[in-house]
Amino acid sequence: MTPDRVNRLVADSFPRTTALGFSCVELGDGWAIARLAFDADDVRPGGIVPGPSVFGLADIALWFAIFTRIGFEPMAVTSDLTIHFLRPAVGSALLARCNLTKVGRRLAHGEVRVWEEDGDPDRVVAFASGTYTLPDREPVSQAESGEATS
Amino acid sequence: MTPDRVNRLVADSFPRTTALGFSCVELGDGWAIARLAFDADDVRPGGIVPGPSVFGLADIALWFAIFTRIGFEPMAVTSDLTIHFLRPAVGSALLARCNLTKVGRRLAHGEVRVWEEDGDPDRVVAFASGTYTLPDREPVSQAESGEATS
Amino acid sequence: MTPDRVNRLVADSFPRTTALGFSCVELGDGWAIARLAFDADDVRPGGIVPGPSVFGLADIALWFAIFTRIGFEPMAVTSDLTIHFLRPAVGSALLARCNLTKVGRRLAHGEVRVWEEDGDPDRVVAFASGTYTLPDREPVSQAESGEATS
Amino acid sequence: MTPDRVNRLVADSFPRTTALGFSCVELGDGWAIARLAFDADDVRPGGIVPGPSVFGLADIALWFAIFTRIGFEPMAVTSDLTIHFLRPAVGSALLARCNLTKVGRRLAHGEVRVWEEDGDPDRVVAFASGTYTLPDREPVSQAESGEATS
Repeated sequence: MTPDRVNRLVADSFPRTTALGFSCVELGDGWAIARLAFDADDVRPGGIVPGPSVFGLADIALWFAIFTRIGFEPMAVTSDLTIHFLRPAVGSALLARCNLTKVGRRLAHGEVRVWEEDGDPDRVVAFASGTYTLPDREPVSQAESGEATS
Repeated sequence: MTPDRVNRLVADSFPRTTALGFSCVELGDGWAIARLAFDADDVRPGGIVPGPSVFGLADIALWFAIFTRIGFEPMAVTSDLTIHFLRPAVGSALLARCNLTKVGRRLAHGEVRVWEEDGDPDRVVAFASGTYTLPDREPVSQAESGEATS
Repeated sequence: MTPDRVNRLVADSFPRTTALGFSCVELGDGWAIARLAFDADDVRPGGIVPGPSVFGLADIALWFAIFTRIGFEPMAVTSDLTIHFLRPAVGSALLARCNLTKVGRRLAHGEVRVWEEDGDPDRVVAFASGTYTLPDREPVSQAESGEATS
Repeated sequence: MTPDRVNRLVADSFPRTTALGFSCVELGDGWAIARLAFDADDVRPGGIVPGPSVFGLADIALWFAIFTRIGFEPMAVTSDLTIHFLRPAVGSALLARCNLTKVGRRLAHGEVRVWEEDGDPDRVVAFASGTYTLPDREPVSQAESGEATS
C-alpha cells in the first residue's frame, strides 16, 4: 500500500470522494494521514470548515489506516465515530492522522487527530475515536480473535 | 419559531447548507425534525447515503432543536457528537428527530434518531448523541445554571 | 424474562453486581429499567454519585434490555459506550431506562437515560449511547442480518 | 505537581477514590498516568476487570492530566466520556495514560489509553476520549480563550 495506490483505488471505486477533495498523503503499518482540500465555496462565513467535512476527513483517515492491515476494503464501513471539535478549523486544507489501536476479526478501532495544514500539528482542531465493521474474513491470528469486551 | 422561519434564517446566513438539501420540517419545544434530500450524485454505489451526510443531518437536527429554546443562534457550535451507524441508509431523503435532554447556560445536549423518509421511523439507520457550546448569555433559570457534573 | 428472573440470573452468575446495588426493576420487548441503590459510603462529598457508578448503571440497563431479545447472555459484552453527564446526580437511588435501537447478529445498540429515583424522570442526569458485542449465534432474521454501515 | 502530591490531595478530599485503588504514578505537562489495583473480589469470573472500573480509571487519568495545567481542582467534573473496550482486561493492575489535546477556559479534552500493568503498553485494552467542564476562572491565554467550534 502506498498513498498513490490508495488514491487510485478510491478514485476508481468512489470517484465522488476524490472529487470532494479527500486524499491519502502518507501511511505506514497501522496508521495513515488523510488530507481534505477545499475552495471558498466549501467553507462557512469566516472561512470555517463545516463540522461534517471534518467528520468526513477523520472517518476516511481511519479507513485508510485499516487498509494498511487488511488491504483495500470497500466493504469496511463505519460502525461508530465520536468527534470532539476543539477549535475552529480554517484554511485551505486540513490533515488528519489516524493511529489504529486494534484490528480484530470483525471490528477495527482507531483514534484520529485533525489539524490545519498551514498550522501546528499539535494544535488539534478535532479529535475522533471510532470503529469500523470489517467484512467476514479469516481470523488475523489467534491472539487477535477475541473481540471487544468489558 | 416555525420550520419556515428556521429555513429562511438558515438560507440567509448559511446558503450552502440550504443548497446541500438540509431543511427543517417540524419543530416544537425541545425537539425538531430535520430533512436531507439528495440526488443521484450525492450517494455511494448502491444508493447508500455517505456517513458524513448522515452526520451532518444529525448535527443540524440538534441545532434546530436548540433554536426552540434560545432562538436562532449562528454562534451555537457543535462541541462533540457520537454517531452510531446502525443500518445502510438508502433512498432520496432522510429524516432526523432530535430531542433535547438538557439546555444549560453554556452547553446543550440532545439525542437524534435518523430514518429513511420512505421507511419505518422505528427502523433507525443512525443514532447520535451530542453537545453544542452556547455563546455567553443570561442564565435561563436558577435550576438550569448548574452545568454537567459527575 | 421478568425482573425477578433477571435478578436471580445475575445474582447467580455475577454476585458482586448484585452486592453493589444493581437490579432490574422493569422490562419489556426492547427496553429495560435498571436501578442502582447506594449508601452514604458510595457517594462523594455533597451526596454526589460518582461518574463510574452512573456509567455502570447505564451499561447494565443496556445489558438487561438486550436480554429481552436474545435471552440472558453473560457473554454479551460492552463494545463502546458514550456517556454525557448532564446534571449532578444525588439521592439514595438512580434509575436508568434503556431503549434498544438495533439488535443485529453481532452488535446491539441502545440509548439510556438516567434520573434520580426521587426526582422527575424528565430531569435527565446522564445520557448514554452504546453498543454490545453479541456472541456468535443464529441470525435473528433476514431483515436483521445486515450490520452497521455508513 | 508530583504523583505524591496528587495522591495526597486526592486522599484528603476523596478518601474513597484512594481506598478503591486509584493512584497517580507519573505526570508531566499535559499528560498523566493513573493506576488501578484490584484484588480478587473486584474482578469478574475469569479475572476480567469490570467495565465501570476501566471507565473510572480512564476518567481519573484525564482528571490528573488536567491538574498539570490548572492545578488540583475538585470542581473539574466529567462532561462526557466515550470508551471503547478493545480486549478483555485481566491481571492485578491496569495503567492508563491521558494526553490532553486542549485545555480551554471552560472545557478540557483528552484521550486515554488503558493497558495491563503486566502486559505490553501497545496492547490497548480500552481507549477513551472525553471532556471535563472546568470551573470559572481567568482565561489561560488569549490563544486558548476560544472554545470548541465546528
